[in-house]
Amino acid sequence: MIIVRLNPEINIKQISRIIRLIENSGFVPHLSKSGRVTQIGVIGDNAGLLNDIHRLSGVAEVVQTREPFKLVSREYRGSDTLVKIGDVIVGGKGVVVMAGPCAVENPVQMLKIARAVRKSGANILRGGAFKPRTSPYSFQGLKEEGLKILARVRNETGLPVVTEVISSSNVALVSKYADVLQIGARNMQNYALLEEVGRTRKPVLLKRGMMSTLEELLMSAEYILSKGNPNVILCERGIRTFEKYTRNTLDISAVPVLKQKTHLPVIVDPSHATGVRAIVPAVSRAAVAAGADGLIIEVHNNPDKALSDGFQSISPLEFARLMKDLKLVCHAIGRSISVGPHT
Amino acid sequence: MIIVRLNPEINIKQISRIIRLIENSGFVPHLSKSGRVTQIGVIGDNAGLLNDIHRLSGVAEVVQTREPFKLVSREYRGSDTLVKIGDVIVGGKGVVVMAGPCAVENPVQMLKIARAVRKSGANILRGGAFKPRTSPYSFQGLKEEGLKILARVRNETGLPVVTEVISSSNVALVSKYADVLQIGARNMQNYALLEEVGRTRKPVLLKRGMMSTLEELLMSAEYILSKGNPNVILCERGIRTFEKYTRNTLDISAVPVLKQKTHLPVIVDPSHATGVRAIVPAVSRAAVAAGADGLIIEVHNNPDKALSDGFQSISPLEFARLMKDLKLVCHAIGRSISVGPHT
Amino acid sequence: MIIVRLNPEINIKQISRIIRLIENSGFVPHLSKSGRVTQIGVIGDNAGLLNDIHRLSGVAEVVQTREPFKLVSREYRGSDTLVKIGDVIVGGKGVVVMAGPCAVENPVQMLKIARAVRKSGANILRGGAFKPRTSPYSFQGLKEEGLKILARVRNETGLPVVTEVISSSNVALVSKYADVLQIGARNMQNYALLEEVGRTRKPVLLKRGMMSTLEELLMSAEYILSKGNPNVILCERGIRTFEKYTRNTLDISAVPVLKQKTHLPVIVDPSHATGVRAIVPAVSRAAVAAGADGLIIEVHNNPDKALSDGFQSISPLEFARLMKDLKLVCHAIGRSISVGPHT
Amino acid sequence: MIIVRLNPEINIKQISRIIRLIENSGFVPHLSKSGRVTQIGVIGDNAGLLNDIHRLSGVAEVVQTREPFKLVSREYRGSDTLVKIGDVIVGGKGVVVMAGPCAVENPVQMLKIARAVRKSGANILRGGAFKPRTSPYSFQGLKEEGLKILARVRNETGLPVVTEVISSSNVALVSKYADVLQIGARNMQNYALLEEVGRTRKPVLLKRGMMSTLEELLMSAEYILSKGNPNVILCERGIRTFEKYTRNTLDISAVPVLKQKTHLPVIVDPSHATGVRAIVPAVSRAAVAAGADGLIIEVHNNPDKALSDGFQSISPLEFARLMKDLKLVCHAIGRSISVGPHT
Repeated sequence: MIIVRLNPEINIKQISRIIRLIENSGFVPHLSKSGRVTQIGVIGDNAGLLNDIHRLSGVAEVVQTREPFKLVSREYRGSDTLVKIGDVIVGGKGVVVMAGPCAVENPVQMLKIARAVRKSGANILRGGAFKPRTSPYSFQGLKEEGLKILARVRNETGLPVVTEVISSSNVALVSKYADVLQIGARNMQNYALLEEVGRTRKPVLLKRGMMSTLEELLMSAEYILSKGNPNVILCERGIRTFEKYTRNTLDISAVPVLKQKTHLPVIVDPSHATGVRAIVPAVSRAAVAAGADGLIIEVHNNPDKALSDGFQSISPLEFARLMKDLKLVCHAIGRSISVGPHT
Repeated sequence: MIIVRLNPEINIKQISRIIRLIENSGFVPHLSKSGRVTQIGVIGDNAGLLNDIHRLSGVAEVVQTREPFKLVSREYRGSDTLVKIGDVIVGGKGVVVMAGPCAVENPVQMLKIARAVRKSGANILRGGAFKPRTSPYSFQGLKEEGLKILARVRNETGLPVVTEVISSSNVALVSKYADVLQIGARNMQNYALLEEVGRTRKPVLLKRGMMSTLEELLMSAEYILSKGNPNVILCERGIRTFEKYTRNTLDISAVPVLKQKTHLPVIVDPSHATGVRAIVPAVSRAAVAAGADGLIIEVHNNPDKALSDGFQSISPLEFARLMKDLKLVCHAIGRSISVGPHT
Repeated sequence: MIIVRLNPEINIKQISRIIRLIENSGFVPHLSKSGRVTQIGVIGDNAGLLNDIHRLSGVAEVVQTREPFKLVSREYRGSDTLVKIGDVIVGGKGVVVMAGPCAVENPVQMLKIARAVRKSGANILRGGAFKPRTSPYSFQGLKEEGLKILARVRNETGLPVVTEVISSSNVALVSKYADVLQIGARNMQNYALLEEVGRTRKPVLLKRGMMSTLEELLMSAEYILSKGNPNVILCERGIRTFEKYTRNTLDISAVPVLKQKTHLPVIVDPSHATGVRAIVPAVSRAAVAAGADGLIIEVHNNPDKALSDGFQSISPLEFARLMKDLKLVCHAIGRSISVGPHT
Repeated sequence: MIIVRLNPEINIKQISRIIRLIENSGFVPHLSKSGRVTQIGVIGDNAGLLNDIHRLSGVAEVVQTREPFKLVSREYRGSDTLVKIGDVIVGGKGVVVMAGPCAVENPVQMLKIARAVRKSGANILRGGAFKPRTSPYSFQGLKEEGLKILARVRNETGLPVVTEVISSSNVALVSKYADVLQIGARNMQNYALLEEVGRTRKPVLLKRGMMSTLEELLMSAEYILSKGNPNVILCERGIRTFEKYTRNTLDISAVPVLKQKTHLPVIVDPSHATGVRAIVPAVSRAAVAAGADGLIIEVHNNPDKALSDGFQSISPLEFARLMKDLKLVCHAIGRSISVGPHT
């Protein structure tokens, strides 16, 4: 990709000429603003173009990027992307906490948990309606019924809702009910699905595959941005290793590495990363201290009877205690737990 | 799952009574034949049923399986599944070789390679029309145009065609042209896609995810069988490790382990497993010696100019030499390279 | 192992009878105190003994442990082990920071770095005199000359010294100069070396092998304790995975898991775990927030010219900034950076 | 390293002049013969030397190697190294089979197994006298008593003996009894031990660490060769991955990759690589088909009662059957099972 940084004093006529040159050369111009600077990204094999553009008036600088990812890179956009979910902002100074059960089980359970986590300061409600399961014979979620429950609980509590979409053919349906579309680890390289959510403007929570490098995670985000949706939140949720005490191995370094490589917000899922209830609080504190923009935590009112993932869910009481600890850690690093939603 | 093995002398009335009991208890009976023995698999939480069935006449034995996978297990079906692709059989005594380029590039290339590999003894032609790529900006395949090329080359050479399907919405389209539907490593846990190919009766080549356990691979195959399609071929294609000389690490033990756990045929992809042209022959010999039912090998007439994966493709000449070596190894273990197709 | 918990009011005669029974049965009694409770550990195949001991007076409880490790387990000793290094205590409320260059290069360098890190609050000086290197042709350290430099710098600055011992035949030599014996990742299962440091009473810093499970790390610590040396500090330093942006993958969950399984102190090495200077501060904060009892950080006055590992060393200035941040994180979780040494 | 290839017609005076120049420049000349060609390897930062040597008479060619390993590289020595163990040769046309129990248990057992495997065609007897065990409380081997048993069984059967040495301080002792010194996976980077066996001229069987790259394995072999011992056999024995059906994952590609990079012989340990008795035969066939120069297989007369690793040992009967199969596979690739020893 080449990035064309424009002069702050550039006029409309000059901009038009630049865009025309790019389009006439067969490329697509990607305009973006980073602070006061306007720039145009041009993706593709465009070495020739580089020289021509250089000479046009209004162009401050033309740079060639080295990373394989483009629109998600810090080079393309220096300032942090802020993803708005209702009036909650992910990627800013406030650390956002998403909490709720692994799976939506019934309206009573959802409402109970939602009220409990909201009271402790959670900003977003999580809960799976479509559950991708290793076995075709395991509970696969309540599907549309689950989405409806989520929507009703949002109306009652004001908490925006994040839930997983597992197939490109379901994106429209899930979008109807959810505030954030979650792409699960198994689907990180389901490109048809990435392109489909890329065609919406809904915020997307993109989880790292358990076998994927950070570069591959960024490339998958690039799929979404390249289709026009800039509202992507990255999520580290543990990778697969030989260690057996934990379900996965949380790659804590992923947080500062991603914050360096991309302008997108980065959150951590301590529940799937560890699979062990007792260490979720310690790992959550670590994630915030490492610079994560948020957390997504499994909370269940009766973890031992949860329909899925009970062994890694914490109780509302444990969650309340954790939120207090997190406030102190946020404060120590010059941040705070996000407040809101304000409804 | 419980497996109800029936008496060889059972009569229709007795069978009907057994099936009625299963259905009235809310379960689905899965009938199958393994050699002379007919049996019924019943999946689900059915401990109670076990006792009731035991007492019915015509029942020889009722066993409870321990593995999490059911229809794919050796316990459910003792004899090897034979998958028929035209008149080529995968899973029998003959070792089946699938060969061709990574991606379909143009009709001339495809025909040239197809003729070359057929001459050396290949049984099936491979070639990607839809290419799942890490970057949205990489060559994504010729899509339907590629499928049409494949179909024409099949008509000219007689070689059945295996090609990848990357989205549930494309299954019908790809099925129209292809003889075998390939599910790639990245999509091994794309359950919507697995279910969709499960609803067809087309042979499916299911590749192991690059960080999936063998149990997960079997569970993904179970998704396909549980939807009614028994024609699944498993493919070991290397897993992701820390080793850097090779692109992935071929898990050769997967071959005998899978042959022990399941009745489905097992093949090996030495090209993706190694990513190194020079060692493809040695690894191919090893796969056959370990008991693989087939190989899927990337062959390109001009590996250095291939649009993708050239560094791991072997030339038609190298392929011809390899086929000679493989014949000797097959012979040493009491098998042979499959002959055919016979058109 | 069985653990015999004694009655607080037990008398000497009763204790003697218990010990006599254990010894007469062919076992070795391991006495320990955990708070007010005295107990005796008995390792081996001793199911029979369990019944006999149960009946003796003065015995409060006899429990059989399930973990494969014994003396290092929380079951054997409930209260945290405090390892004393001069007047610095590892494992207590204070978080201990060890800092210094990867390798001792010369006296001027060592003194300069030591003064700088002490000024910023470091408690222990690190520096390698014997360097285990992948290549026999790489710089292998200044050996005894390096040890002498470390000892002189300790005398000048008061900072106790931790340095690696790479062979059982060198334990006596290194013990002469060092305050803490470091066992490197490559030697975590060098049992001859573990036994040799187990025969001293020097504090041992045992690093996790890059391929070792936490259970194996605990078993290696067990080797040291079983030879009589209880002064072991465990160190998580990253494990090997497929991720490429970082040198290793820091297993942050190891901190709370180990704190739960063992009474030994646990520290983190963010430098080797990441191999990337820019993210050492973020990962250090995370380690402390996760509950680590300390850190061991590579600091070099001229990272770009370091004889080894320069790319992962931070400068004294960056270290000073990091220490300020760490103080705030410590405070947030109810701890503090350890002060001292007091000389 | 630079490699100085000498003219076949070079005279003594010319050689002396070349060697003098190298030594006067502060380097050590390593002479070797590869077929008819004599060459001198010079390791170190020697760019300057390259030009000077180029001009001397008798020098045919001076090349700079790119690999980090030197004396073990194919560039340094083109022809295969043949390691002689008694009259058995490893690295030639004959495939060498080492077989025996995991641990030496008693003289009767060893003699019984040795006679059985010799009868089936094994060339070398394996058996552990010093056993490195994860737990300090597990059976650690019979130590010197075990070595004596091995020596006596060798005298009775004529089979040379390979056994593990686990500490540099034991190299002299083990060398007294053993024909081949085995370095186990845990000690692959125990450099003190590597250097110590490098100072002997005993054949060394160097096993790959369970999370070591092939480059690191070659660098560890370099440690041995750099101390003067050229008799090194490399052994692939499985690496650690996430897969759970097998104890480790055999990296079958390691065989052709190593054969390409180094002139040293390469063998495979199917027992530790899989940890599953039932698949040892399939994996052994694969190793030979991939080009391995030998195998080291655990055989026990009563696998279920073995003091260690019984679950992965095959019986003498299974071994006899396997040897028949291996002969056919060897034949198919133009090799044979080595005959001998001839005593």
